[in-house]
Amino acid sequence: MLVYIDLGDVLNLDAKLWPYFQDGLRRIDYVLTYHVQKPQSTHKQSSKSCLCCGFRREQKNLPAHEDPELAAQEQRLDYHEDDQRLRREEFEENLREMGLEMEKEEGTKLPGVGFLKIHAPWDVLCREAEFMKLKMPTIKVYCLINSIAEKVNVFIQKVTAPLQPNVGENQTENEKPLSYPFSREKQHLFDLSDRNSFFDSKTRSSIVSTSPLRKLFCLHSQGRFKTQSMLYEWKLNRCSRMYVILVLSLQILYEQWASYSIFYKYQPIGLVRKYFGEKVGLYFAWLGVYTQMLIPAAIVGVIVFLYGCATVDDNIPSMEVCDERNNITMCPMCDRACSYWKLVTACGTARASHLFDNAATVFFAIFMALWATMFMEHWKRRQMRLNYIWDLTSFEDAEVRNVKLTCRDRMPAYMTIIVMMFFLIFVTLAIVFGVVLYRVSIMTALHMSSTPTFRTNIRATVKTTAAIINLIIIIIMDEVYGAIARWLTIMEVPKTDKSFEERLIFKTFILKFANAFTPIVYLAFFRGRIIGRPGKYLYVMGSYRMEECAHAGCLMELCIQLCITMLGKQLIQNNLFEIGVPKLKKMLRQRKIDKKHQEELNKTLHRHEKDHFLGPFVGLNPEYMEMIIQFGMVTLFVASFPLAPLFALLNNVIEIRLDAKKFVTELRRPIAVRAKDIGVWYTLLRGISKVAVIVNAFVISFTSDFIPRLVYQHMYSADGTLHGFVNHTLSYFNVSHFQPGTEPMQPMHLGYKVEVCRYKDYRDPPWSATPYEFSREFWAILAARLAFVIVFQNVVMLMSDFVDWLIPDIPKDISIQIHKERNLIVELFMKEERGKKYRNTIGDPSPQPLRSRPSSQA
Amino acid sequence: MLVYIDLGDVLNLDAKLWPYFQDGLRRIDYVLTYHVQKPQSTHKQSSKSCLCCGFRREQKNLPAHEDPELAAQEQRLDYHEDDQRLRREEFEENLREMGLEMEKEEGTKLPGVGFLKIHAPWDVLCREAEFMKLKMPTIKVYCLINSIAEKVNVFIQKVTAPLQPNVGENQTENEKPLSYPFSREKQHLFDLSDRNSFFDSKTRSSIVSTSPLRKLFCLHSQGRFKTQSMLYEWKLNRCSRMYVILVLSLQILYEQWASYSIFYKYQPIGLVRKYFGEKVGLYFAWLGVYTQMLIPAAIVGVIVFLYGCATVDDNIPSMEVCDERNNITMCPMCDRACSYWKLVTACGTARASHLFDNAATVFFAIFMALWATMFMEHWKRRQMRLNYIWDLTSFEDAEVRNVKLTCRDRMPAYMTIIVMMFFLIFVTLAIVFGVVLYRVSIMTALHMSSTPTFRTNIRATVKTTAAIINLIIIIIMDEVYGAIARWLTIMEVPKTDKSFEERLIFKTFILKFANAFTPIVYLAFFRGRIIGRPGKYLYVMGSYRMEECAHAGCLMELCIQLCITMLGKQLIQNNLFEIGVPKLKKMLRQRKIDKKHQEELNKTLHRHEKDHFLGPFVGLNPEYMEMIIQFGMVTLFVASFPLAPLFALLNNVIEIRLDAKKFVTELRRPIAVRAKDIGVWYTLLRGISKVAVIVNAFVISFTSDFIPRLVYQHMYSADGTLHGFVNHTLSYFNVSHFQPGTEPMQPMHLGYKVEVCRYKDYRDPPWSATPYEFSREFWAILAARLAFVIVFQNVVMLMSDFVDWLIPDIPKDISIQIHKERNLIVELFMKEERGKKYRNTIGDPSPQPLRSRPSSQA
Repeated sequence: MLVYIDLGDVLNLDAKLWPYFQDGLRRIDYVLTYHVQKPQSTHKQSSKSCLCCGFRREQKNLPAHEDPELAAQEQRLDYHEDDQRLRREEFEENLREMGLEMEKEEGTKLPGVGFLKIHAPWDVLCREAEFMKLKMPTIKVYCLINSIAEKVNVFIQKVTAPLQPNVGENQTENEKPLSYPFSREKQHLFDLSDRNSFFDSKTRSSIVSTSPLRKLFCLHSQGRFKTQSMLYEWKLNRCSRMYVILVLSLQILYEQWASYSIFYKYQPIGLVRKYFGEKVGLYFAWLGVYTQMLIPAAIVGVIVFLYGCATVDDNIPSMEVCDERNNITMCPMCDRACSYWKLVTACGTARASHLFDNAATVFFAIFMALWATMFMEHWKRRQMRLNYIWDLTSFEDAEVRNVKLTCRDRMPAYMTIIVMMFFLIFVTLAIVFGVVLYRVSIMTALHMSSTPTFRTNIRATVKTTAAIINLIIIIIMDEVYGAIARWLTIMEVPKTDKSFEERLIFKTFILKFANAFTPIVYLAFFRGRIIGRPGKYLYVMGSYRMEECAHAGCLMELCIQLCITMLGKQLIQNNLFEIGVPKLKKMLRQRKIDKKHQEELNKTLHRHEKDHFLGPFVGLNPEYMEMIIQFGMVTLFVASFPLAPLFALLNNVIEIRLDAKKFVTELRRPIAVRAKDIGVWYTLLRGISKVAVIVNAFVISFTSDFIPRLVYQHMYSADGTLHGFVNHTLSYFNVSHFQPGTEPMQPMHLGYKVEVCRYKDYRDPPWSATPYEFSREFWAILAARLAFVIVFQNVVMLMSDFVDWLIPDIPKDISIQIHKERNLIVELFMKEERGKKYRNTIGDPSPQPLRSRPSSQA
Repeated sequence: MLVYIDLGDVLNLDAKLWPYFQDGLRRIDYVLTYHVQKPQSTHKQSSKSCLCCGFRREQKNLPAHEDPELAAQEQRLDYHEDDQRLRREEFEENLREMGLEMEKEEGTKLPGVGFLKIHAPWDVLCREAEFMKLKMPTIKVYCLINSIAEKVNVFIQKVTAPLQPNVGENQTENEKPLSYPFSREKQHLFDLSDRNSFFDSKTRSSIVSTSPLRKLFCLHSQGRFKTQSMLYEWKLNRCSRMYVILVLSLQILYEQWASYSIFYKYQPIGLVRKYFGEKVGLYFAWLGVYTQMLIPAAIVGVIVFLYGCATVDDNIPSMEVCDERNNITMCPMCDRACSYWKLVTACGTARASHLFDNAATVFFAIFMALWATMFMEHWKRRQMRLNYIWDLTSFEDAEVRNVKLTCRDRMPAYMTIIVMMFFLIFVTLAIVFGVVLYRVSIMTALHMSSTPTFRTNIRATVKTTAAIINLIIIIIMDEVYGAIARWLTIMEVPKTDKSFEERLIFKTFILKFANAFTPIVYLAFFRGRIIGRPGKYLYVMGSYRMEECAHAGCLMELCIQLCITMLGKQLIQNNLFEIGVPKLKKMLRQRKIDKKHQEELNKTLHRHEKDHFLGPFVGLNPEYMEMIIQFGMVTLFVASFPLAPLFALLNNVIEIRLDAKKFVTELRRPIAVRAKDIGVWYTLLRGISKVAVIVNAFVISFTSDFIPRLVYQHMYSADGTLHGFVNHTLSYFNVSHFQPGTEPMQPMHLGYKVEVCRYKDYRDPPWSATPYEFSREFWAILAARLAFVIVFQNVVMLMSDFVDWLIPDIPKDISIQIHKERNLIVELFMKEERGKKYRNTIGDPSPQPLRSRPSSQA
């Protein structure tokens, strides 16, 4: 093992801030923790060095003779412990062989916890950086282009200056060092004067965490490397926690990122990436872009909503409903208990539903479909820009291709998915059906009681309570489904961590998505459509009639459901699960330590010992999942609820800072992972935005009254206006055709004898040749609805594709700069070539002039 | 300049086969030709060396004093000549600076033609290969995996042995050399014992053609490099032709590839790539995969067609049409001249249309949509496999990103496209309308003549002649549109060659595609739909009634049109344009040389001088374009013509060998271009296969009678069969409602007085309350049609996406081997590391043992 003594004199930073080995010279790049058996007090002093292991092994059976049962248990524990220790030793041996240096610290202050501190010497860092083809900044600096676009950018930056975080990295940089994959043969290209800071802490730690893996790949590459590497990958990722702390930058992150008071500012993404690695950086960048893009969507949504409010008094159909002179008697809403009712009593609902069902809604649905495409494109460009700034343009994730799932790999996944889907469909439908039954029975019961004031509020009460019940079920089932997905994935025993993650995401997504959207889909497309007609109602469970919609369609209820789900889910999940639960866990973890010790410990503990009490980093998947479901809410049913983007925006502004706080203060520092993109989540987003087009087409044409109104205006209206529309939508029913036993108990409830009542459907009147058959209008409107779906779907898809094609994936300036960088590298090497040739010609073998030349150019 | 004398002794090949400089040592890697002024006989001897230029410059004004006009013209020519020569000299200077060696040969045997032979010395080759990051085989050889899948492969290979071309490269290779980007610092990894064959001729020539460009990039990278590089790129690509000939492999290619007698064999793609480069290799590989995939499609298509033939006698609707007892009188097909006719006369058409309009057609449309997806996936996998075999996995086309078009770049393209589209729509519609008028007028005229035998064949005659006229127009306009697209693109002055190509492809595609498909779209979706109804027909151009379809729908005519277009287009374009025209051109070119010299020249000419008479390589775009249009024919309207894949298959089997012959014998050897994929053509294929789903959905639901039959069976039929369907589709018309002057001149033509005639539409009868309005059945069937479109489109798209997801893009064995290769490289370097360490420890500074070590492993 080589020790670089010369590293010491370079360090001029406060030694307290940087964690070092006990010699104070070698920096800690990585800390692993493991559980050790609580040592008996007699062995305590021996646990400091690695020799302890051998010592303990000899002693392990000494106290076992006293109590047979206890002894057996202890032996089992000991055996387990022993096995783990052996593995650990093998693992440590591997690390040592790779050239890494280690220091152990077992149970000094925290009993039962061992720390293995790892330091990567300079030559290991260089070697691994070369293998990983890490792009590092060279000494060659070049100017960024200074075109008009650039000047506009500068202007924009000046205007948005108050929105920029105050981290001293946002000055308009006109220079960028040329980056080149690190290679020891080309060392002269890089500025190695400060070897200690050439690789930053994130890079060092990720080098340390991947280097043993590489070794294993080499050793076992002939055959069975897969399982072996998996084993170690597993060990590394499951058992190890990494927390090299740069207190300095954490403070900045805390002040300039994880604070609610600066919610209106951009995030310091560069710093986040420097501290947490590219993967986390990309998540927050994505969240930022999403939130930013929600601003225009929210504004347009509010305008659409206000347009609805402003035109509510000019809306002819709701005026007709509210007009007392149109003395329309409606058929009863339920058997026996309910009686005939006057259409005018639905006046409030009709007016309210206009807010969400007007011409602007169609525009908004198209707008949001294009918005989704724009968002995707915008993100792609942002990602490309970040890739350029973070020097990832030529980085290729070797592992991605490796674990690309093939057909056969996927087969077990198919099986579980199929089984799961059946189970899921059953459970979800059962829940929805249960809520429907609740509504129907409560409604009937309420109708039975004859308090008139109570009755008027019946509908609103039932709707709201049902929506709240749905919400509670959704939130509970969300957690349950998360656990089920995890359990199913573990059952599958996937080969690698990556495939585990991929499958888990897939399952969780399906389950949670279905859970969140089944009640909404039921409300939007099935409620009130399968009720039959007066005299021939559809009955379920014996005598329950399927529920009808209020006069103005089910759109209103859909709105209420969406509103409650979005607000409630976000509030409860944010507050309870994201803030409450971690705090609780931290408290529990700290309680394990004796109370008396705790305070004194807090003062003397090292940073990495303190961090042991923090929660482990469980990956970004829950965060992404939450956002994806929200994205679904925003895009899928936006035609029925234009305020969804506003709600999402308000939530996300808080969410960013909440997540930031969690990452900075509540969690152990995650291993920095390099990533070029957000991976499978982008695919899911694309999928959702495609489905959204179809769903919105159906919502507009089938759930809203947009198409019937249009058809009435152009085919049936006498004067081209909507006058008479309400009458046109109502069919006639002869009350003598009620099935025996279903007619209302109080037929005289309205004060007069009803002979013909009306119901909302397009059917032939009782006096026609084909009574109660679907009328010609029904088929014409159905054809119009379907035609609208086809036109809407294809036009919007075409427009999306066009927008996709129109906006280049790579921003112009970035593509120019990438090109320029490439030319500069060629130029650099061409000069070197000429230098070589020159040297060869004049016969000077010394490489010195060449090596120093680039630095003089910088 | 360095001359490698030692190159000579390595050469042990027949010097006649390889072209060399006059010293017989330096190999010719690249030949440029240029036009020189025919030297006066006095200067002839001086034209051999480069000094001639200066000599001629001095003399250029000597003969100009005699005739002022001639002198001025000559001067202009001379000036032009002079300018060109200066540019050439600058260009040559650049080449020389890059280290390339040249030899000039001006007008020795061929007057007016100069040859510039270029040789790339070893160090230039190495330098450029390093810059281009060319992956070269190392001395390390590894075994390919030998799993069960591999054994199955071996078995398959044995079975298909007779189908393999006999080129000695298809033996089951169990070993593959590990490839690594060439680097002079890692020379010890490569087998450089035979420097002459380390880089093959294709690589050498592409190195020579890109190296001057690189230099220019460097010189001008600060600012105006773009125009400069463009200029040289232009010069190189426009003015230079490259034809280093490997006679040996050409002979094999000629025998084992470009021969019709081996049409059933696979192509020797590896050889094709070795000789023509990756881009051409990919084209032929793609064509091969496409042709191969057409086999199952053709088989299923034939089965579907045979199913139609077999069930034609069981088809109730055509039986009803042919049944004499159903005495149905139809309304006249045209005004005045035509009379009433009996439905039974349409018996033949009705029976024939069943061949293409039955339940199997729907299945076939779905099958073909999935087939298209499978084809894409299969190609992606094949491409990946080729990338792996050809060591392109990590090759990144630097230029692609460079010319990625941004919004602003595209603006001129938008403008011309918009203008063009309007022009195109006008022209194409005019043509279609012209053909329609032709048909209508001929039909009326033929009806006027009262020869009964003639009349029965009227429909068939008119249909066929119209289809042939359409075909001729399509073929003529195809050439015209090609020229227009080229002209428009040149007008745009695109910045680089690549963007020129991209825009040209885009324009040509739009124009040719529209040209080929407009008549078909008209037939499929518009013909017979905008005719009005009896008594209220739609008239165009004064008195021409829009044409009606025959009883069995327009599907039959669509079939005829498709059949004639496919057969005719392929036969004429293949035979005339691809074989005839090049032959003609070659003859013309050779005629320029005096006849008497020609024969003796043929014997003495060098290979590169002979090749001067061959046609230039104009790119692969015309070939791809032809295939894309064919792919459109195969997928877009496959629901109406299940034999399309068969026709395409027959054509392509010939096409492959035809193109091969052309490449081997008719064209100059193209510059080898590296490419990873087929680029924009893949996007176009994807686009077509997406559009095909929608088009087929509409063809099935609107052009065929599939949906009306289904609706009749389930909603209106008394016994659930199709009995009575024909009667149901015909509406009634009271002949007294004819507009005055439009009633038939011979009302008693059928021998009895007609009071009510029938026509094909769903309208209320004259005796209903709303006579001639669309009936309830019309709307119901329309709704069913539209619903079918929605269901078909979304289900098939979902299935395609599912198939896409199901089939991994990278074949399992390839992904394993790529992974293995990566590990082997890491292992190789790890061993080297350890070797270094060892050396450092024992203090041996000699690099010799390390360098020789890898070779002992091989």
